Amino acid sequence: MVPDIAEYVRQLVTGARAAARRIASASSQVKNDALVSMADGLLTAAAALQGANRKDLAAAERANLSPALVDRLTLTEERIEKMAKGVREIVALHDPVGEVIDGTVRPNGLKIERVRVPIGVVGFIYESRPNVTADAAALCIKSGNAVILRGGKEAIHSNVAVYEVIADALESAGLDRNCVQMVNTPDRAVVDALLRADGFIDVIIPRGGEGLIRAVAEKATMPVIKHYKGVCHVYVDADADLGMAETICMNAKTQRPGVCNAMETMLVHEGVAQEFLPRIAEKMRAEKVELHGCERARAIVGDMAEATEANWSEEYLDLVLDVKVVGSVDEAMDHIARYGSAHTDSVVTRNVVTAQTFLDEVDSSTVLVNASTRFSDGGEFGLGAEIGISTDKLHARGPMGLRELTTYKWVVRGNGQIRT
Amino acid sequence: MVPDIAEYVRQLVTGARAAARRIASASSQVKNDALVSMADGLLTAAAALQGANRKDLAAAERANLSPALVDRLTLTEERIEKMAKGVREIVALHDPVGEVIDGTVRPNGLKIERVRVPIGVVGFIYESRPNVTADAAALCIKSGNAVILRGGKEAIHSNVAVYEVIADALESAGLDRNCVQMVNTPDRAVVDALLRADGFIDVIIPRGGEGLIRAVAEKATMPVIKHYKGVCHVYVDADADLGMAETICMNAKTQRPGVCNAMETMLVHEGVAQEFLPRIAEKMRAEKVELHGCERARAIVGDMAEATEANWSEEYLDLVLDVKVVGSVDEAMDHIARYGSAHTDSVVTRNVVTAQTFLDEVDSSTVLVNASTRFSDGGEFGLGAEIGISTDKLHARGPMGLRELTTYKWVVRGNGQIRT
Repeated sequence: MVPDIAEYVRQLVTGARAAARRIASASSQVKNDALVSMADGLLTAAAALQGANRKDLAAAERANLSPALVDRLTLTEERIEKMAKGVREIVALHDPVGEVIDGTVRPNGLKIERVRVPIGVVGFIYESRPNVTADAAALCIKSGNAVILRGGKEAIHSNVAVYEVIADALESAGLDRNCVQMVNTPDRAVVDALLRADGFIDVIIPRGGEGLIRAVAEKATMPVIKHYKGVCHVYVDADADLGMAETICMNAKTQRPGVCNAMETMLVHEGVAQEFLPRIAEKMRAEKVELHGCERARAIVGDMAEATEANWSEEYLDLVLDVKVVGSVDEAMDHIARYGSAHTDSVVTRNVVTAQTFLDEVDSSTVLVNASTRFSDGGEFGLGAEIGISTDKLHARGPMGLRELTTYKWVVRGNGQIRT
Repeated sequence: MVPDIAEYVRQLVTGARAAARRIASASSQVKNDALVSMADGLLTAAAALQGANRKDLAAAERANLSPALVDRLTLTEERIEKMAKGVREIVALHDPVGEVIDGTVRPNGLKIERVRVPIGVVGFIYESRPNVTADAAALCIKSGNAVILRGGKEAIHSNVAVYEVIADALESAGLDRNCVQMVNTPDRAVVDALLRADGFIDVIIPRGGEGLIRAVAEKATMPVIKHYKGVCHVYVDADADLGMAETICMNAKTQRPGVCNAMETMLVHEGVAQEFLPRIAEKMRAEKVELHGCERARAIVGDMAEATEANWSEEYLDLVLDVKVVGSVDEAMDHIARYGSAHTDSVVTRNVVTAQTFLDEVDSSTVLVNASTRFSDGGEFGLGAEIGISTDKLHARGPMGLRELTTYKWVVRGNGQIRT
């Protein structure tokens, strides 16, 4: 229990601000030392982490959490090893801090550069999986930011145990323990106070269900980088290679249906619907995918449920797929503009004009041609690790890695220039 | 008078959204045609613009506006020519839309690019000068954005007249009139409704006094890019060339004191204070600069007012200067961190270590060594024209030009890749 929330939050944010000023100029070597020591520490502390995790699991049982949630919460030895491995992968990534983005010499001799610098203080609010704690902390350390972590209450004992390892690792590398801080109470008033601490926290990154993210976005007085949901489309064009379309659609829907870059709606050009729909429907059903169709799709494949207006903007995160027949790439793009979530949309076509039109005009974070929506991911894009995905337009769009945890400043070198 | 504000704002934002989708893929040629026709149109309409302006000037007289405000409001023939010239300068700038920021081929053959695209719909809220209307509209058109303009009520007739020229120019180039829209009522309820239209307006850029900007930032439910004020510092180091320091400080304070990149506080190392302070004080006084000093500064230059705690964070925008003697670059940087506005700060020194420390550790949008703070400006940095200055950390920092009115999307080209 926290006796005085305002004072607790004041200490968190002033501690973070001071730590941010110091870690901003820490060398890659020092930051990597902390990360290596953190990875080692996670392995050494495996038994203690599992002990803390058992308290969360016992509470989860008492609270009757679903088996899926309990599974996500569980820290096995293998998962702890994976967590440590994830941290070591971040050690190997390029440190973006100090990078000169561009530079020029002005006619008056001023040398002007834009130099990458850490954002400052990140607030990271997330749900139940304890491995996210290690991941997020490691990304913030590597990018020179201080971070305040607030995990789900279901994982609080596990998170605090992981946090102790992180703080010790920071100290052993000569960094401030406060570079990473963990909210150690489930009290929501603490979150509310953090969300009003603009001036101390530079950006909030929420990760979890749509409800959590909406609540954070509404209350926060500082910038929030977020995505609400992924209503991803694959448009099978009249000029598609239907074999390729089938492979891509099956992968996009069934390879991992519970994630934000899985396909939720398949749009099929009327020119190929008669041929394509029966065969994809059969394949989908073999994988136990429930289909909802528009009127025209249902005229071709009889035993499909009727797609309601609300269905088109739903993120199922499950083996459910909406199917619509469209008359043109324009109609497909209109549908995406209206019902999509600006996350990830793909076109399957052999027609280079159609492909370019789709890539140019669909206003989503990620647009693909002839590839599965499932590739929209920091790891797959080569970012190494991702702190989240943004469907916002400003600062970062799509998968966010280390670079997206930085900003820049203008550095100007002169030899006495004045303005006339 | 607007009978139904909700309906009026709904039309504005849906019109902007639809126009944004179209102008996003307009070619540079078409956008430039619109701008050239706008520049021509401003000159052709000069008499009509001055006629509309006279209504604003008459109202200003009735409202007893200050001579400075009336001057800013006045559209002379020369100013109209300057406005047209400003638009032609934007024609000549590089169009950032479509630029490939970076790209890579993944081991599985996927070709991944980040491509610059317009943000979408910009809301631009500003104060009295009518030339800003033409400037902002031209920058948004060139960067492929739709914009909703809301100028000060003092300039409403002038702004609407300038707007008519813009809308005709858009149309003559085959673009949608709604690419630029102008709020034609001073009713503040319209602004309030616009600030709640997230989902339609992607970003709000306010430009004006601190009061306007704070009100906008508090009410807006979408991202806001802004700067509240410029409390800019020059730190004269122990190793400064004092002649250079004098030139830079005089320029930073007196060349144009009413703007946000003018110096408000001068920090002087104790090692040179005895020599430097009397000579700079004399020069400042010759330019009618009122000086406020810390205790140590006043011990050296007797007839200086005492600087109060509140003074250190004030943006005077006038011939007033705070002076403080510090013991080290660290003390100077602590002062800047505490009282500064993260806008623009400069160090004068011959010591390369001190210079680098200052450039690295001062967390401001622009940091300079041996140059006047007055250079912190889009034009001076080579951006061509600026839509504003940001002291925020996300998306854009410092002067914002065309590039800062864009975002990016991930474009992925495959040949049937699926994720395994």
